[in-house]
Amino acid sequence: MNTLHVELAERRYPIHIGPGLLSQPQLLEPLRGRPLFVITDEHVKPLYLERLCASLGSDPARALALAPGETAKTLANVNEVMGLLLRARLPRDGVLVALGGGVIGDLVGFCAAIYQRGIDFVQVPTTLLAQVDSSVGGKTGVNHELGKNMIGAFHQPQLVLADTDTLKTLPRRELLAGLAEVIKYGMLGDLQFLNWIEENLDALLKLDGEALSYAIRRSCEMKAAIVAQDERETVSGGAGPRATLNLGHTFAHAIETYTRYTEWLHGEAVATGLCMAADLSARLGWMAQADAQRCIALIARAGLPVKPPAGLDAAQFRNLMGLDKKNVSGRLRLVLMKPLGQSLVSSNFDQAALDACFTHFTSA
Amino acid sequence: MNTLHVELAERRYPIHIGPGLLSQPQLLEPLRGRPLFVITDEHVKPLYLERLCASLGSDPARALALAPGETAKTLANVNEVMGLLLRARLPRDGVLVALGGGVIGDLVGFCAAIYQRGIDFVQVPTTLLAQVDSSVGGKTGVNHELGKNMIGAFHQPQLVLADTDTLKTLPRRELLAGLAEVIKYGMLGDLQFLNWIEENLDALLKLDGEALSYAIRRSCEMKAAIVAQDERETVSGGAGPRATLNLGHTFAHAIETYTRYTEWLHGEAVATGLCMAADLSARLGWMAQADAQRCIALIARAGLPVKPPAGLDAAQFRNLMGLDKKNVSGRLRLVLMKPLGQSLVSSNFDQAALDACFTHFTSA
Repeated sequence: MNTLHVELAERRYPIHIGPGLLSQPQLLEPLRGRPLFVITDEHVKPLYLERLCASLGSDPARALALAPGETAKTLANVNEVMGLLLRARLPRDGVLVALGGGVIGDLVGFCAAIYQRGIDFVQVPTTLLAQVDSSVGGKTGVNHELGKNMIGAFHQPQLVLADTDTLKTLPRRELLAGLAEVIKYGMLGDLQFLNWIEENLDALLKLDGEALSYAIRRSCEMKAAIVAQDERETVSGGAGPRATLNLGHTFAHAIETYTRYTEWLHGEAVATGLCMAADLSARLGWMAQADAQRCIALIARAGLPVKPPAGLDAAQFRNLMGLDKKNVSGRLRLVLMKPLGQSLVSSNFDQAALDACFTHFTSA
Repeated sequence: MNTLHVELAERRYPIHIGPGLLSQPQLLEPLRGRPLFVITDEHVKPLYLERLCASLGSDPARALALAPGETAKTLANVNEVMGLLLRARLPRDGVLVALGGGVIGDLVGFCAAIYQRGIDFVQVPTTLLAQVDSSVGGKTGVNHELGKNMIGAFHQPQLVLADTDTLKTLPRRELLAGLAEVIKYGMLGDLQFLNWIEENLDALLKLDGEALSYAIRRSCEMKAAIVAQDERETVSGGAGPRATLNLGHTFAHAIETYTRYTEWLHGEAVATGLCMAADLSARLGWMAQADAQRCIALIARAGLPVKPPAGLDAAQFRNLMGLDKKNVSGRLRLVLMKPLGQSLVSSNFDQAALDACFTHFTSA
């Protein structure tokens, strides 16, 4: 088992990573005797709820399973959870436990952030994406019909338990989507880690526990280091260190909006977004053309999409990216690389290169 | 004009207090050029929206007026506001302005706390209660059908503008309800201020600008000093300094729940709650009987209720107070005085005295 301690301004919390952790009650010792409530989804419930409750020493009846999927992230569901917690009389010193993927983590974290103005919560992520991404950074929230993650709060967990064995029941597509975020960390800040991923891709794809634990730990560690410099994404008006975590994401959001957040998984859209960010960085002369090709080849080898969906043309891309919330008062800002392994946030780049990138990726 | 600076852990913000401030654009200078959206209610809109927008230099069309009253504080309204802000494309560096009483302040502050994970907001309170109470402390939120203020966040304003002239259009009952909170500050922490209120009650009731400004300033100052010790009500598990601001409130919540939050104003319930807290403190021998009588006489002279509603009996009181969220894991905790002018939080008091207090206040 690996344990990473995330250092926040006023406290620290542990992320435990490894196989079989759900069956190790001693890791949940800090919660012993506290009033708990577990929220999960209907896919995860039959797989892991009982085991988690046994380790927590809590009543499996004090749990809610929501319908699975991104559509669960609504204020209406938040209201339902609030009612449930009030009926269960969860006090202000109670703890919410999120058992599931990123959707559950985001929703439950947000519920914990606003229930009685904030209670403690614990993350038990069961997807690779949630294990590498939502365990660190404190971003929680739900969607609005007019935009994804437009409603939310920063709220840090007390503890994260990432059991890599849960990835064995994860659909293959979701595993790969999580790998896209792992590759992102290599591309944005650690060339050595990118090399390691290239060398260990087969082990990762075979769910080798040791390889997974290292990939998750290194991703969380990098994210924690970046988040520590910019806990609320406020440094440089949102163009600071934390924004670099959005490498590929502005392109990805355009793809997700175009496909109405239904056909593509977030990580799949990020995979293509990473290809586009690499291509644009190379077009700008900020990284070698060969390095862009190398990233795209790795993403393709991981079984992830390297092209936007058919039908999304350059003009639509431009329009969809104009709506992105990363625009401050109207200027389009992108996370790019200069060179590979070093990311930067820029709104000062050649628009023609961006257009060429759109055209390249949207032509058949 | 009085300006009080509230010192927070990481920044400070000004509260400007005095007559005619809505017509002084220079006070709103820090907002110049930033994208704004104003939220108010239908009562306040025709009275002050145009004047505020002129001082802000903002378009009065970028405003929303909600139906007035406590029933506006719902997650459904939050969702509506979110939609409006997204359609108006308010960016993350935009500012929400709350123009109205406590309901608008709580709702708008919460919307600012969770819109795109938190944007800046400004309070322009137009009731005495909002001017003395919600300007300081950062508590924002909405109600759930199962409990008042059960959904919320801590979110501090950038600036507060308390124009005492707005109290001239305030219904008399609401003015008095605000006075109850002013009296609370004297009782909980400043005997000299309590003396001052006794001496200046007539001036306050006549809306004398100087007297009002002093009373508001002193209340905000006391609240700010208390909040600074305990920004998130977490010290001593919620029994720390900040909890003393709830003097009278546990009794008040029982009255409000009994009357379904419709017949009594919050400040009216607090007035009676203050009388009961004083009575109980005297019964416990923690303050002089004469001091309790003095408080009750002042509250009566201010035209505020000193008895709970007819029909609410001692047994119901006990039951209603058992539901109060200030109970940590099941123990009833009250804010009391020992002696008058010094508050404390205690769950260690003679239950028979509490019963005698209930009986005394609920007998005809």
